[in-house]
Amino acid sequence: MDLKAYLSERRDLVNRALAAYLPRVRGPAFRVVEAMHYSLFAGGKRLRPILCLAACEAVGADPTEALPVACALEMIHTYSLIHDDLPAMDDDDLRRGRPTCHKQFDEATAILAGDGLLTEAFRLLAEVAPRFAGREAVLLEIIELIGRAAGYQGMVGGQMLDLQAEGRHITLKELETIHRMKTGALLTAAVRSGALVGGADRHQLTSLTDFGEKFGLVFQITDDLLDVEGEAAEMGKTPGQDEKRRKATYPALLGAEAAREWARALMEQAIAGLADFGERAEPLRAIGRYLLVRRS
Amino acid sequence: MDLKAYLSERRDLVNRALAAYLPRVRGPAFRVVEAMHYSLFAGGKRLRPILCLAACEAVGADPTEALPVACALEMIHTYSLIHDDLPAMDDDDLRRGRPTCHKQFDEATAILAGDGLLTEAFRLLAEVAPRFAGREAVLLEIIELIGRAAGYQGMVGGQMLDLQAEGRHITLKELETIHRMKTGALLTAAVRSGALVGGADRHQLTSLTDFGEKFGLVFQITDDLLDVEGEAAEMGKTPGQDEKRRKATYPALLGAEAAREWARALMEQAIAGLADFGERAEPLRAIGRYLLVRRS
Repeated sequence: MDLKAYLSERRDLVNRALAAYLPRVRGPAFRVVEAMHYSLFAGGKRLRPILCLAACEAVGADPTEALPVACALEMIHTYSLIHDDLPAMDDDDLRRGRPTCHKQFDEATAILAGDGLLTEAFRLLAEVAPRFAGREAVLLEIIELIGRAAGYQGMVGGQMLDLQAEGRHITLKELETIHRMKTGALLTAAVRSGALVGGADRHQLTSLTDFGEKFGLVFQITDDLLDVEGEAAEMGKTPGQDEKRRKATYPALLGAEAAREWARALMEQAIAGLADFGERAEPLRAIGRYLLVRRS
Repeated sequence: MDLKAYLSERRDLVNRALAAYLPRVRGPAFRVVEAMHYSLFAGGKRLRPILCLAACEAVGADPTEALPVACALEMIHTYSLIHDDLPAMDDDDLRRGRPTCHKQFDEATAILAGDGLLTEAFRLLAEVAPRFAGREAVLLEIIELIGRAAGYQGMVGGQMLDLQAEGRHITLKELETIHRMKTGALLTAAVRSGALVGGADRHQLTSLTDFGEKFGLVFQITDDLLDVEGEAAEMGKTPGQDEKRRKATYPALLGAEAAREWARALMEQAIAGLADFGERAEPLRAIGRYLLVRRS
């Protein structure tokens, strides 16, 4: 399959849906909506929504059914970037080659824009209830799993651990916990929620969850490798940040070659676990392989 | 009715439920859970949860059915206090007589604790789906309305407007918009969601929503009056803050006596609108009357 064309088509689909779900209305609190837009349309890869649509497709359903869930995931991802970039957190001035939200607006507006995106994600999920008529329980299961993945048991907890680990020696096991919570949980939730929208049975759900978890780990390992080896122009951010901040990374703990080898082996296992899905899971496999060669 | 005993009993009920829903687990991200707890159990009045239970009661249902929704509302209210107190926002050091979350912990932890409470509120709402078996659509309607009340169309938008209005002359109409969004929307959502849990019909829902909206306005007028006339010891915060920050208030725009009179008239109308509910709405009426004489 032509992955590049597939990703570009899906990205457009997601972008159009996001623009429809979060219109740039000139209401009273226009400034915070502007800031939400600024960060939501900053040129992200839309990886989480695309994974969600691909998982829906893998179980034989129309991927567009998963669009609201996909958009909610991207809103949550974007909120987490805005808050992580704040001076009190990672204190980043650039994101995807543009000023971060608090640099473009101000800190208060950035905090509120993040809060607004997080809240809107859950509101949107509940709003599409009529599309789940007769199977509202599935939609509630999706809201619960996304909430768990995003909250203190997942992303929020992972960011807390990541901040606490800065400048401190941590073990490989601790590093895995941080990343499983901070980025793995939401990536896995993207795959799982797409599968649930598509009507996956429990066996399919288990297989796809397992794929999502391995995908999340490979994503983080390759992200760390990019920080060591990437080019600023291609990444839209400055490489070498992890070392500068004395953040533990997989290449630092294992060596770059061993980290790369591990990522390759994990992705092989993850793809092997999708054997039952046939052709329909080809996009998931292709996105998985792409992680290993990505340059941004 | 003995309002004091009623409020105390309901507060205990809510506190026990909150403690059960957010256990102090010693997981990996313990620090953020500690901060969530610190602010959630800082001695709040539990006004939103109590309103929610009372609205459920007013339509003839068992108020304990609304406990998960009541707890989610309190988590959202607490998150908003934590974020509003941040240095980039209102920069407050004291809240309910204790150091604010970012003073007790640090800014990053406070941002994450707020994010964690907001996320957990929605997760909790979805988690209790089995209690709504056969009427999951009602639960989704509740999640949607709370999301709308908390997000950029409600509380988040209201805080944005409030920050933009600081030190600037605003009209009475602008002040009403700010407060309708910043505090009114969530108070109204508390009443509405409780009524929905209790199985309110559309007519009852309209009456109770109208009560909630007037209640929200009276709450804000009396809050402003307290800031002018209150005693620090009773309020757990320093009075005179609004004037110091050059914030527009109802007493400043209307005069204290006219503001008090308006609040009284509004509450009379609000209570008159509950005539159809009989005895069961007595707690709602009593809480409404209490707003006019509260000292904290």
